[in-house]
Amino acid sequence: MRLGAIEAGGTKFICGIGDENGVVFERISIPTTTPEETIGQVVGFFRDKEISAMGIGSFGPVDLDKNSETYGYITSTPKPHWAQYDLVGEIQKHIHVPVAFDTDVNAAAFGELEWGAAKGLDSCIYMTVGTGIGVGAITESRLLHGLTHPEMGHILVRRHPEDHFEGSCPYHKDCLEGMAAGPALEKRWGQKGIELAGNEKVWEYQAHYLSQALVNYILILSPKKMVLGGGVMKQEQLFPLIRKKVLDTLNGYVQHPQLTEENIQDFIVPPGLGDNAGLCGAIALAKTLQQ
Amino acid sequence: MRLGAIEAGGTKFICGIGDENGVVFERISIPTTTPEETIGQVVGFFRDKEISAMGIGSFGPVDLDKNSETYGYITSTPKPHWAQYDLVGEIQKHIHVPVAFDTDVNAAAFGELEWGAAKGLDSCIYMTVGTGIGVGAITESRLLHGLTHPEMGHILVRRHPEDHFEGSCPYHKDCLEGMAAGPALEKRWGQKGIELAGNEKVWEYQAHYLSQALVNYILILSPKKMVLGGGVMKQEQLFPLIRKKVLDTLNGYVQHPQLTEENIQDFIVPPGLGDNAGLCGAIALAKTLQQ
Ligand SMILES: Nc1ncnc2c1ncn2[C@@H]1O[C@H](COP(=O)(O)OP(=O)(O)O)[C@@H](O)[C@H]1O
Ligand SMILES: Nc1ncnc2c1ncn2[C@@H]1O[C@H](COP(=O)(O)OP(=O)(O)O)[C@@H](O)[C@H]1O
Ligand SMILES: [Zn+2]
Ligand SMILES: [Zn+2]
Repeated sequence: MRLGAIEAGGTKFICGIGDENGVVFERISIPTTTPEETIGQVVGFFRDKEISAMGIGSFGPVDLDKNSETYGYITSTPKPHWAQYDLVGEIQKHIHVPVAFDTDVNAAAFGELEWGAAKGLDSCIYMTVGTGIGVGAITESRLLHGLTHPEMGHILVRRHPEDHFEGSCPYHKDCLEGMAAGPALEKRWGQKGIELAGNEKVWEYQAHYLSQALVNYILILSPKKMVLGGGVMKQEQLFPLIRKKVLDTLNGYVQHPQLTEENIQDFIVPPGLGDNAGLCGAIALAKTLQQ
Repeated sequence: MRLGAIEAGGTKFICGIGDENGVVFERISIPTTTPEETIGQVVGFFRDKEISAMGIGSFGPVDLDKNSETYGYITSTPKPHWAQYDLVGEIQKHIHVPVAFDTDVNAAAFGELEWGAAKGLDSCIYMTVGTGIGVGAITESRLLHGLTHPEMGHILVRRHPEDHFEGSCPYHKDCLEGMAAGPALEKRWGQKGIELAGNEKVWEYQAHYLSQALVNYILILSPKKMVLGGGVMKQEQLFPLIRKKVLDTLNGYVQHPQLTEENIQDFIVPPGLGDNAGLCGAIALAKTLQQ
């Protein structure tokens, strides 16, 4: 089986060919410029690849409602040229295979559930902490959708008592993304995340915000695994800090063996698929069309 | 079809007989005292009722994992006599029918989806603001479960800037339940909720906390309807206050026709089944066993 996959991001489109076991045969990266230019190259890549289905995980917001006239569109993005763009439609004009479409983070969650850190489970969340904060979720074996798709990166968090940074979210200022995504770090401290590696206070603040978000996700979704990826999570010292604060904040309220000092390192984890979670997730989406 | 239903609460057990359309033929209320006494009366009520299945929505925490040895138990409740009590097992010793078991609020959400305010949809949440704050959810047509069942009443919220009440949750002090359940109101203001009806500040604070929680539920679960019940929500002036604050806080970030000034009164609503949401939900649970 040859399955096509696209991880459509605001910076680059990663395209690949894989099989039903998540093995990737080939992948390329195409810069995200204008839709004409980028999608032209994407279509060129897939044209003679003899794929039988395609999965797309896309940056958003996207329209996932199959009854909607704008199903398959990237909708109200602030990204120039891409608002109200018919991503699935344009690709299907040129590549005549069925397409499964979801958010980039839902795809990554699905990839991790199929072949990664959450393999064998029926629920997990995947959180990326990068240019933005996005979260995808599987509950009861299904990708989580509803009125729209979740936008968990923007939940409200309590400030760290010493933190006076106003927050960088254009909609909510000091929501989670506004306080803890890469650009918020850079704006608050005047340096890029990678340059702040040795500054303990930076990671204490960061764990304060991310652990709060995880606590709320645990209380609301009760996932069986929490997978944390994205550029900022390359700072591995964050993991133990976050795990400790999650337990401290829950304070024994939710009783489960996973939520103990012994086992939490197996519950809040880095991606099993590394930087391939999104692409593999798109392959997993494509695979659902073949069953 | 004659279906048995129990809404098992910390104050009373409501037992009823209904049919596959949610019509209730008969109901009684039994005080929650000791398990022997209460369950004795419950069993007595159902004994000659010729039901073919039973649904139970229970106060918690409960064990919903069918692979667990303590499936069907009320687990770590602080309520005297009821911790580690095998509710489903004890009932099935005497009433020999299949039993569907879930949390009280999941049952209520299911009732509202089958026959109430969320009829025809595939997702909703049901929130009760009473002695505690509990929330049940249906996502993608399924009752939401995971590692455990959700405990959304305990999410972290930001304080109202003028509110110095320390919070009444024994685990988290100033979590949502600790700031906004009935006992928190009573402790903060020195009067019962019903006596505070005319005090505007009370309901402004209350809307501050409840709207924050709803915003987080919208961002995380994206439900198609939010149903708010329980004693405190009898203060109907809360609904418009909450709706307005939800829109103000989202600030246009999630674009959907339901999330507009025009339509939000159709999105955040009181229970369509009134005080029968829990009992009807238990009937709906029983019905799933007959299909
Ligand atoms: N090793 C690192 N340590 C800390 N921050 C990093 C690191 N690598 C990237 N970042 C930050 O993460 C953000 C980019 O996130 P990334 O996940 O790589 O891309 P994107 O979110 O655009 O897909 C930037 O703000 C960058 O400064
Ligand atoms: N009309 C009302 N207005 C305000 N608060 C109320 C009202 N009725 C009950 N309450 C409060 O709600 C709580 C009881 O909630 P309720 O939903 O009736 O029961 P329970 O949660 O125990 O099932 C109490 O704290 C009570 O003071
Ligand atoms: Zn935001
Ligand atoms: Zn609490």
